[in-house]
Amino acid sequence: MDEGLEFKLTVLGSGSAMPIPQRYQSAHVLTVHGRSYLIDCGEGAQRQMIRYHIPFSRIDAIFISHIHGDHVFGLFGLLSTMALSGRTAPLDIYGPVALGPVLNFNKSFFGDFLSFEVRFSPLKYNSPSGDLAEPFLIRSTKALEVWAMPLNHGIDTFGYIFKEREPQMNVRRSAIEKYGLTLTEIGTLKRGEDVVREDGTPLPASEISYRPYSPRSYAYVSDTAYFDKEAQWLRGVKLLYHEATYAEEFAQKALERFHSTTLQAAAVARDSHADTLLIGHFSSSCKDPEVYEAQARTIFPNTFALSDGQEFSVPLDRVKLD
Amino acid sequence: MDEGLEFKLTVLGSGSAMPIPQRYQSAHVLTVHGRSYLIDCGEGAQRQMIRYHIPFSRIDAIFISHIHGDHVFGLFGLLSTMALSGRTAPLDIYGPVALGPVLNFNKSFFGDFLSFEVRFSPLKYNSPSGDLAEPFLIRSTKALEVWAMPLNHGIDTFGYIFKEREPQMNVRRSAIEKYGLTLTEIGTLKRGEDVVREDGTPLPASEISYRPYSPRSYAYVSDTAYFDKEAQWLRGVKLLYHEATYAEEFAQKALERFHSTTLQAAAVARDSHADTLLIGHFSSSCKDPEVYEAQARTIFPNTFALSDGQEFSVPLDRVKLD
Repeated sequence: MDEGLEFKLTVLGSGSAMPIPQRYQSAHVLTVHGRSYLIDCGEGAQRQMIRYHIPFSRIDAIFISHIHGDHVFGLFGLLSTMALSGRTAPLDIYGPVALGPVLNFNKSFFGDFLSFEVRFSPLKYNSPSGDLAEPFLIRSTKALEVWAMPLNHGIDTFGYIFKEREPQMNVRRSAIEKYGLTLTEIGTLKRGEDVVREDGTPLPASEISYRPYSPRSYAYVSDTAYFDKEAQWLRGVKLLYHEATYAEEFAQKALERFHSTTLQAAAVARDSHADTLLIGHFSSSCKDPEVYEAQARTIFPNTFALSDGQEFSVPLDRVKLD
Repeated sequence: MDEGLEFKLTVLGSGSAMPIPQRYQSAHVLTVHGRSYLIDCGEGAQRQMIRYHIPFSRIDAIFISHIHGDHVFGLFGLLSTMALSGRTAPLDIYGPVALGPVLNFNKSFFGDFLSFEVRFSPLKYNSPSGDLAEPFLIRSTKALEVWAMPLNHGIDTFGYIFKEREPQMNVRRSAIEKYGLTLTEIGTLKRGEDVVREDGTPLPASEISYRPYSPRSYAYVSDTAYFDKEAQWLRGVKLLYHEATYAEEFAQKALERFHSTTLQAAAVARDSHADTLLIGHFSSSCKDPEVYEAQARTIFPNTFALSDGQEFSVPLDRVKLD
């Protein structure tokens, strides 16, 4: 694939709160069109970034789901290392309001020594009724939009949905030749706008232009107990990561601890019409993730139980007309 | 060796501030007579403890040298995991006064969820003149004494000296037979006290008792620039860890950054009459620790450049008279 158009997930940590040798704690990196986004930052995330060749300088923004230690304790070391590496570019960090004091501690710890600005965007559960609010847009760049999605984890917790932007339209090569299109006309059609020539000939974009590929998307849903609106909010996501801390036998424990089971994660994938489901955040009591995978596949066959270091590229679903 | 009398160092991290794949950041564990002491706690120390079979429950106290991130950022995760593991025993933490706010942050982060009490002993540079104070006793147990030793690192920084206590005296087996010693007399002689029998016969402890082994000791000296009194304060230490962040070619840089070179560490080992010198905290620019080791050995032959996971047991220098 054209590297400039990559859409790739790298799993830095697939474990849960209790550390085990073979799994680091929660941290994912999504790389879209050459920029990387870190989602959650468990202890040792920076070490995993080195191991799996994610340059610190490429991290554009960090998204924290909630302030349980296994999702946030790697932040201090990472910010320190970014400074030691000479970063000067501002770093945007998104997370629940309660992340503020964590970042304030970091600021007081380093004082003025941090060589770059940390810009924190506190996210709120904005429904006065206490119901979970709808997902809302928090970041919009040339390449993608990021939406925060309230989750159900006992404390303020957000999932994140990364949606590649609609690509610029392509103009059919056959039409360029047939009509002898000028550069100006091609530019107009690429923006999806119709052209009407001086002699009155209409050149409608809907006929002459086409969308070269479908935008890709990735959602990170951790930690959460299952709730009704999940699938609706995630509708159409291509690559879905959903926590499955517990196997189905422990459904009651999952509910009590605001976590999900394998079958719940799979039901969300099925009902949101995802292409692929990734499950992780396994309880330290999970000795065999294949059992988790097998359970989820009874409902959603295209499920994969995560291991640290795995990469998932979402291919360009390119339209070829000419 | 009798496991109950072990005196063993386990190196969890031998690197410095910039993380590199093959070295974790500063953390040592000393195990004395079945209890373990953690000295410094760089990010990921808990992961290394699992890897190198140090039970969390065996940690009796933690000693932090200074609050640079690479010596302290593993503390949050470790305390969290201790709680998840059901610890209820209080945990003593020693470190400079500035460690207080770090522990306060931790407390505010976990609120009342931590299942055990953290007892912090803030250590002060207690010389009003600004000169480094003498080493001072901070902990005294049945098995050992721990002394804090001010270092020279730009911010308040302490080394730690662990001294095994003088063992109870043994009574020569030959004397027991020769004099037909009673249990009471043996008890008195074991305490090192003289016995005078009812008939006036003197049984002096100095002749009949003997010290069964020499007490062992370990000193952790990191981070610091070389200073005059080091060797004097460390006099007679058996196992000495001394940072050697830089090779000798970078002596000027070491001085500017309050660090030591290979030859400085070796000179301290020589002048304090240590048995063994361990060097570590290598700059991330150090590609070949053997070069560091070779430099130090020109002054102090019994030097070892550390790697993560190494263990050093100090054997009992047992006296056998009978």
